[in-house]
Amino acid sequence: MAFLPTFKDVQNAHEIVKKYAHRTPVLTSSSINNIVGGNLFFKCENLQKVGAFKFRGACNAVFSLSDEDAQKGVATHSSGNHAAALALAAKMRGIAAHIVMPSNSPEIKKKAVAGYGANITFCEPTLQARENTLAQIVAETGATEIHPYNNFNVIAGQGTAAKELIEDFGEFDIIIAPVGGGDLLSGTALSTKYLLPGCKVIAAEPAGADDAFRSFREKKIIPSVNPKTIADGLLTSLGDRNFAIIMENVDDIVTVSEEKIVEAMRMIWERMKIIIEPSSAVPLAAILEGKIEIQNKKVGIILSGGNLDLGKLPF
Amino acid sequence: MAFLPTFKDVQNAHEIVKKYAHRTPVLTSSSINNIVGGNLFFKCENLQKVGAFKFRGACNAVFSLSDEDAQKGVATHSSGNHAAALALAAKMRGIAAHIVMPSNSPEIKKKAVAGYGANITFCEPTLQARENTLAQIVAETGATEIHPYNNFNVIAGQGTAAKELIEDFGEFDIIIAPVGGGDLLSGTALSTKYLLPGCKVIAAEPAGADDAFRSFREKKIIPSVNPKTIADGLLTSLGDRNFAIIMENVDDIVTVSEEKIVEAMRMIWERMKIIIEPSSAVPLAAILEGKIEIQNKKVGIILSGGNLDLGKLPF
Repeated sequence: MAFLPTFKDVQNAHEIVKKYAHRTPVLTSSSINNIVGGNLFFKCENLQKVGAFKFRGACNAVFSLSDEDAQKGVATHSSGNHAAALALAAKMRGIAAHIVMPSNSPEIKKKAVAGYGANITFCEPTLQARENTLAQIVAETGATEIHPYNNFNVIAGQGTAAKELIEDFGEFDIIIAPVGGGDLLSGTALSTKYLLPGCKVIAAEPAGADDAFRSFREKKIIPSVNPKTIADGLLTSLGDRNFAIIMENVDDIVTVSEEKIVEAMRMIWERMKIIIEPSSAVPLAAILEGKIEIQNKKVGIILSGGNLDLGKLPF
Repeated sequence: MAFLPTFKDVQNAHEIVKKYAHRTPVLTSSSINNIVGGNLFFKCENLQKVGAFKFRGACNAVFSLSDEDAQKGVATHSSGNHAAALALAAKMRGIAAHIVMPSNSPEIKKKAVAGYGANITFCEPTLQARENTLAQIVAETGATEIHPYNNFNVIAGQGTAAKELIEDFGEFDIIIAPVGGGDLLSGTALSTKYLLPGCKVIAAEPAGADDAFRSFREKKIIPSVNPKTIADGLLTSLGDRNFAIIMENVDDIVTVSEEKIVEAMRMIWERMKIIIEPSSAVPLAAILEGKIEIQNKKVGIILSGGNLDLGKLPF
């Protein structure tokens, strides 16, 4: 069993994270509450730095390094929000970030990571190429690899979002997070089960990328094979650290259709006036699809991020 | 001279408004700060109920009525955010709202107002027809007319946004609001000049609808003639109450181009992950166009609203 963080590690992470990250607002919408019949509180990590909760974990990982390790920099392979988050956290500490990106990454993401001053290395768009390129960079520089989700400090950092939600709004009946690699979900579960033992933690996942749903039911990690969903932040398979925490602390995982993800996304844009990426819409989609019973319940939802191409909206 | 509200009236309004409205979050963006060279704080009235600051004034107007007056309902003519705001405030008090709307109003706005349970009367799309229809309804029902901006209680209500901004974030060097009818600007000026006498209050207006800019310079109200701008919330001419407060309390009014409005709007969408309507982008547009000197200054900006047709984005 891998070495796992506990709520104590989330608390320690929070002491670091609160210095560098936004304490994001929690928004409510009477009109959405009327539609769904529950009392929803949205923790807006789309309004976090770099537009995603990922900054919390990256920040904790970077600032937890010893000075000696830190001076050699950090490294990861990612084409998504973790790359930007790690680049910004490293910039804040004044150290190098080495980011391996597939050569076919969207221009907008390449620009964002470059904008934070990271050293980018492009490679063939295969997992093998990404891992080999990263291993080479780590060997050359001595940089510390910060895995996007299967990492102790990253998980503890992501748990600070739910911690803030509960600190700010007290008791909840249910807290819902989307699940991809599992760092947000496992961090959320650590905070919630410690602070509110009676509160249910439920994960929502696209049916087209349902590896966590199946892994949870079969009690072993079943990797994602050819996942297909508009929720591009949720394509990855669970890490073993994330899986262990999830099996211990999560009450259920449900799946949702692509249609409901788009419907929920549009509802949040129109009614709440905030920009969320499709992955963020998955928990509300699960509610709209009747997969989670929330009548008259107080429900926390983590909106994971807001990064998407405004020129390619699904509505 | 019309009877004018003072900061004392804003304080009274706040006791009412805080019961019914969101205390909206104030957001900052390091990346926008880096671009403009100042320290900007955005008061997010786009995240207010009905998606606009207008709810504050409507709420104060409706809940300031005596029970006797209230039972006869309220009335206004408006095709915009004020109509939805008045409808919701009336619904909250359990009284009738009579809204006169031009027959050519966008379907989405008709739906929003109808959704709050208002009695809608459609009329020809001329100011004369709107005023005549409203006068008839007021005569028949005894409802109290709540003017969208040239109204004592509306102005006092709008001032609560700047009051909250200053309560939450202290001193400012400059506070900037867009100007249309002038209720947001005059309310903002009342709060700011009372709480922070040394802080400048500056208004930003589209060059294509520059009646406030010209009125301010000529020291008399010059009505808007054929205004043309993407910022459709700012097409109206100043009211006399608003103008009197503005002449007394506002330091400057500047104009901006349509191109910069769209650029500023897109910048806020992309960097801050919130949905604003074009009118909300006018203050940042003024900064980007170099019309307001904000280097190293602490600047408050009121984002007025977030209502627009997602299918018709200007980018």
